[in-house]
Amino acid sequence: MHGLMMNMPLSISALIRHADRYHGDTEIVSRLVEGGIHRYTYHDAHRRARQLANALASLGVEAPDRIGTLAWNGFRHFEIYYATSGSGAVCHTVNPRLFPEQIVYIINHAQDRYVFFDLTFLKLIEAIAPQCKAVRGWVAMTDRAHMPQGSTLDLLCYEDLINSHSDDYVWPELDENAASSLCYTSGTTGNPKGVLYSHRSTILHAYAACMPDAMQLSARDVVMPVVPMFHANAWSLPYACAMVGCKVVFPGAALDGASVYELFETEKVTMSAGVPTVWLGLLQHTQQNKLGFSTFRRTVIGGSACPPAMIRTFNEVYGIEVLHAWGMTEMSPLGTMCTFKTRHLNLSQEEKYAVMAKQGRPIYGVDMKIVDDAGRELPWDGKAFGDLLVRGPWITAEYLRGEGGSPLREDEHGLKWFPTGDVATIDADGFMQITDRSKDVIKSGGEWISSIDLENTAVAHPEVKEAAVIGVSHPKWDERPLLIVVRKPGAALTREQLLEFFQGKVAKWWMPDDVVFVDELPHTATGKILKTRLREDYKGYRLPGT
Amino acid sequence: MHGLMMNMPLSISALIRHADRYHGDTEIVSRLVEGGIHRYTYHDAHRRARQLANALASLGVEAPDRIGTLAWNGFRHFEIYYATSGSGAVCHTVNPRLFPEQIVYIINHAQDRYVFFDLTFLKLIEAIAPQCKAVRGWVAMTDRAHMPQGSTLDLLCYEDLINSHSDDYVWPELDENAASSLCYTSGTTGNPKGVLYSHRSTILHAYAACMPDAMQLSARDVVMPVVPMFHANAWSLPYACAMVGCKVVFPGAALDGASVYELFETEKVTMSAGVPTVWLGLLQHTQQNKLGFSTFRRTVIGGSACPPAMIRTFNEVYGIEVLHAWGMTEMSPLGTMCTFKTRHLNLSQEEKYAVMAKQGRPIYGVDMKIVDDAGRELPWDGKAFGDLLVRGPWITAEYLRGEGGSPLREDEHGLKWFPTGDVATIDADGFMQITDRSKDVIKSGGEWISSIDLENTAVAHPEVKEAAVIGVSHPKWDERPLLIVVRKPGAALTREQLLEFFQGKVAKWWMPDDVVFVDELPHTATGKILKTRLREDYKGYRLPGT
Repeated sequence: MHGLMMNMPLSISALIRHADRYHGDTEIVSRLVEGGIHRYTYHDAHRRARQLANALASLGVEAPDRIGTLAWNGFRHFEIYYATSGSGAVCHTVNPRLFPEQIVYIINHAQDRYVFFDLTFLKLIEAIAPQCKAVRGWVAMTDRAHMPQGSTLDLLCYEDLINSHSDDYVWPELDENAASSLCYTSGTTGNPKGVLYSHRSTILHAYAACMPDAMQLSARDVVMPVVPMFHANAWSLPYACAMVGCKVVFPGAALDGASVYELFETEKVTMSAGVPTVWLGLLQHTQQNKLGFSTFRRTVIGGSACPPAMIRTFNEVYGIEVLHAWGMTEMSPLGTMCTFKTRHLNLSQEEKYAVMAKQGRPIYGVDMKIVDDAGRELPWDGKAFGDLLVRGPWITAEYLRGEGGSPLREDEHGLKWFPTGDVATIDADGFMQITDRSKDVIKSGGEWISSIDLENTAVAHPEVKEAAVIGVSHPKWDERPLLIVVRKPGAALTREQLLEFFQGKVAKWWMPDDVVFVDELPHTATGKILKTRLREDYKGYRLPGT
Repeated sequence: MHGLMMNMPLSISALIRHADRYHGDTEIVSRLVEGGIHRYTYHDAHRRARQLANALASLGVEAPDRIGTLAWNGFRHFEIYYATSGSGAVCHTVNPRLFPEQIVYIINHAQDRYVFFDLTFLKLIEAIAPQCKAVRGWVAMTDRAHMPQGSTLDLLCYEDLINSHSDDYVWPELDENAASSLCYTSGTTGNPKGVLYSHRSTILHAYAACMPDAMQLSARDVVMPVVPMFHANAWSLPYACAMVGCKVVFPGAALDGASVYELFETEKVTMSAGVPTVWLGLLQHTQQNKLGFSTFRRTVIGGSACPPAMIRTFNEVYGIEVLHAWGMTEMSPLGTMCTFKTRHLNLSQEEKYAVMAKQGRPIYGVDMKIVDDAGRELPWDGKAFGDLLVRGPWITAEYLRGEGGSPLREDEHGLKWFPTGDVATIDADGFMQITDRSKDVIKSGGEWISSIDLENTAVAHPEVKEAAVIGVSHPKWDERPLLIVVRKPGAALTREQLLEFFQGKVAKWWMPDDVVFVDELPHTATGKILKTRLREDYKGYRLPGT
């Protein structure tokens, strides 16, 4: 016996149609790659998305062809999001910060039919085009006047495409489980893997993202998505903003503190979202120039753990609420947000900061648990840490073309969970805090040791510049921690002095078995310590006493 | 090509599981029909809902059996909501305010297997039981100590059922389109019609209900659902509160001002929802006793249009924000809420009140339009009024057992719409305001005349006690308005004086063609003027000049 409600599939085109119909005169403001500011409305965006849908059809694009983008946050990227998914094609956002070989791999693996790019990426496009055989055309996201001269490629012009097509287009009714968009993980090991979202997952995720215990978006907000649209759906903002009909301010390529600050003030931004690095730049700018914010009230910070000092500065100096968030590409990407419960409201400010340092509790639709090596659920005491598993209707079940096999793990109740690769604690209020990456944790005698905790302890020593902890094999304990340290210039710190420093700061059995001093540590392109290399280099390392 | 996200059906059991897991120690407080206050937590509610699910199974209840309730807002009713829907049965809330014959009709039409009732309704149950052949048992929602003595029925005891079953129960995974709950419209004409909700419609509706532009619910709220759980899902609150994990305060049967006020204060309620009548009683109590509210910040008012004076009193005297809402049983029930856009924030307070008097804009998922007799969409100018049509995934497509045929109307684009039976305007911001009921509007020469506007004009005359306007047939204009008036005691108002009073207050062609003075008007059980009777009585009425 089914319910007797209307059968209406969840769809991305309904978002832009709603924004046009109920918020048609609300503005979308973009800083252009070509210079200057562009402003128009949801009504205009919807009209142009329909023109673009007609243009795509005239180029022979059919459902479910993949359409690549290499672009900043701006109104044209926004139109592409809706024109592609709305017409049944798949919007494949490509991260321009990847290595060119990875970009070639991704475009070919996805079999992108057309690729839309901002002028910033012309050289990149020209370099990779010969290796992207499935791509039928490259579209420069600009007008005729700004089209590059003398390109090695026969480029299409975005505004010409729009202008040569009518807006007489009716969005097709699609299966809500149809693929809508695609984003590859940046994968530190192996090839990038494609995460394929559906209309259903995107809409459910947007609902959850807007809620008061998540991003709390309303029509009264002015939102600046600083988090890039080229990765993980800009944390749902291109969808969530249309859902609530708020004004949107796209910062384009200018993510330096001065440019972002200017837009915050001129456009009266109330809410934003981005990674800690961007906010560092913004705060440096405001501190150096003794500036305040007139309308900015809250910001979502995620992508990596938000430094407690940043939460404090935003709060105490600027009166801005930080919403600490956690998620992953495989989660659309939002998983948890750190918003208070009633009982937190009466805590002291210091106790509140301790809560805000956590990544928070799941937005509705996500479930999570922490488990030990045997898959047994661990207690929610804020101390026990284990592999963080998640499930929900906007979480990946498998990767495009079955890459890497099924990532899911089945539990004793027959429920399937996605292993996040993170290690975390969960406290009695259900607030989660990331403590390590699963592959970096040291598994010693069936118990786990957090590499991050040991590294934090080491770098607290005044003579330590940088430190990494990895597990190396041990005949009795399986793995034991090895501490690899770069001393500060001129420092003469010894192994014994450093281990002495650990006394009383960590549990006895967490004490590193040995210390190696090196001149430098290997890093990834984005500045993280490359632990895979360290594990390789110290594979056969003999710990003392073994 | 489908997306590759987890296949997780939306389900009502996931709500209570989530509330237990992430808000297990949050309180649910109930004023008992038996006297006193009951308090426990989401964790307890989940445990007892599982015990009840086992009890239902032991009684032979299977999916999709219907389980009736005749009950106030309280923790046991809350448990029944989850135990029934969660186990695949259908929670059929019966409105005890209907006539006994209607209740018998509804219980038989739904084929309820068991009926759970609060002690308040014992006499009613005893009276109707012999006519409800499909009901296998009647469950008194109380403990052994309060079981009625000497009942004509062989009653089951709710607490005995719970206590005799274990909480070892795993919620089954159900098709998200499976029927979850059932509520009959109170239908002024014909038999009540059954609206059958699904798990999918209930969850999507709850997401939309929680959003900042709807009820704005968070874990930091303390919510008192005054709106009854026996009708239209208490505006989603039994679901939405579990979704966000807020504290809930159930007022039971005591809806008088003093009882409700007491709970507001002792339980620190921040948010509530109900029909205007309840708030009248509460405001009378606070005004007579010169009381204020310590924590109450906002309230949803719907069910019928909220009097502007009430919005003003809540705002100016108590600092409480009124969220004017509109919906219907067939809409789960929420359709629109009146929450501001950015441009409204700078209006004067008087201009804001004018906006707040409207029923507002759709919550995300609902689309609406107003159409004329030919189904042509009317402009959004705040003046043109027409039949209000709606569509969305939590809106009725048909009634149980096909009662009344398909209610939907297909438009020129092939889209199907549900006709609400209301007549409304929509302004340029997309804010809707109800102006009449479709069957009460007078259709004169292809144009529409609002009966409510004419009635409001008539009762503004100092000698008019009550007035009704109906359309009577006219050879040239199809229909023309007839004004039927009850004079105040001792008044000698004439037809000519009253029509003179209308001059300049309504458009010339809206002027009633005739006035009839009567001693009294017929009313429904709930106090509304019974226009169907008036139309019957004045069917052959000859208007002057015809």
